[in-house]
Amino acid sequence: MQRVTNCILIQQNKILLLKKPRRGWYATPGGKMEQGESIKESVIREYREETSLHLQNPELAGAFTFIVQNADRVVQEWMMFTFICNAFEGVQTEHCDEGILEWVDQDKINELPMAEGDKKIFEHVLSKSGMMYGSFSYTEDYDLLDMQLDPSTP
Amino acid sequence: MQRVTNCILIQQNKILLLKKPRRGWYATPGGKMEQGESIKESVIREYREETSLHLQNPELAGAFTFIVQNADRVVQEWMMFTFICNAFEGVQTEHCDEGILEWVDQDKINELPMAEGDKKIFEHVLSKSGMMYGSFSYTEDYDLLDMQLDPSTP
Repeated sequence: MQRVTNCILIQQNKILLLKKPRRGWYATPGGKMEQGESIKESVIREYREETSLHLQNPELAGAFTFIVQNADRVVQEWMMFTFICNAFEGVQTEHCDEGILEWVDQDKINELPMAEGDKKIFEHVLSKSGMMYGSFSYTEDYDLLDMQLDPSTP
Repeated sequence: MQRVTNCILIQQNKILLLKKPRRGWYATPGGKMEQGESIKESVIREYREETSLHLQNPELAGAFTFIVQNADRVVQEWMMFTFICNAFEGVQTEHCDEGILEWVDQDKINELPMAEGDKKIFEHVLSKSGMMYGSFSYTEDYDLLDMQLDPSTP
């Protein structure tokens, strides 16, 4: 099962996002866990690989289960662990293999093209403290079929 | 990949534990996640199945990665999500298929036979707030080979 960790890094009301080339959608920097890593070790490693920045004390903000369906059949299941962080060390890379890194105003996030469920995650993480738990069901084309979020309102 | 959720339920300085028949080791009630569940949905369902108790607002306290090794070869990897909770509804079952349910004094936990890593998890969860992240490496006989915990001290 694929497990992804990522981090919402906030500095002066801006968030560092990654604009991915395939669809032009924005995503939170991060990536796949490696064997035997804790989720925190993973997010620190992945964030550094993508941005060259070293996260300082990231804290888990959300844990999410995703299933990808083709008609009624589940073709994939994966998990995502989203951290939040307010401090980093290092100098941001000028080149990221995965796409274009961009600091975006916090209040502009909901205008960006991104996966529908990701917007809900931002809404929660940026508006309240405490963990968010959720499950999402997507088609193979990444259209959202269903989601359950707890807490249910941002 | 197997994913397990469990919950440390505390009432009047006692914790509900499950004494498992195989080794006589104590464990935290919980069990395997099902497809598409969030970790919180899973822990509430599993806890009810094992104890008949309905957890009220369990909160994630730890996320852990486990690998099981045979010599240098990793034969299994799984994850465990440990919640903490102070309130429940319902009446405790008189019969649990998995073992014997027992309310144990909080300060007696470290005297009980249990997996070595589990003792560390209890030490942390019972002594401080905030999330704990960790990774454990065990032999197939469940002898602890290595562990990394963050925070590293209880």
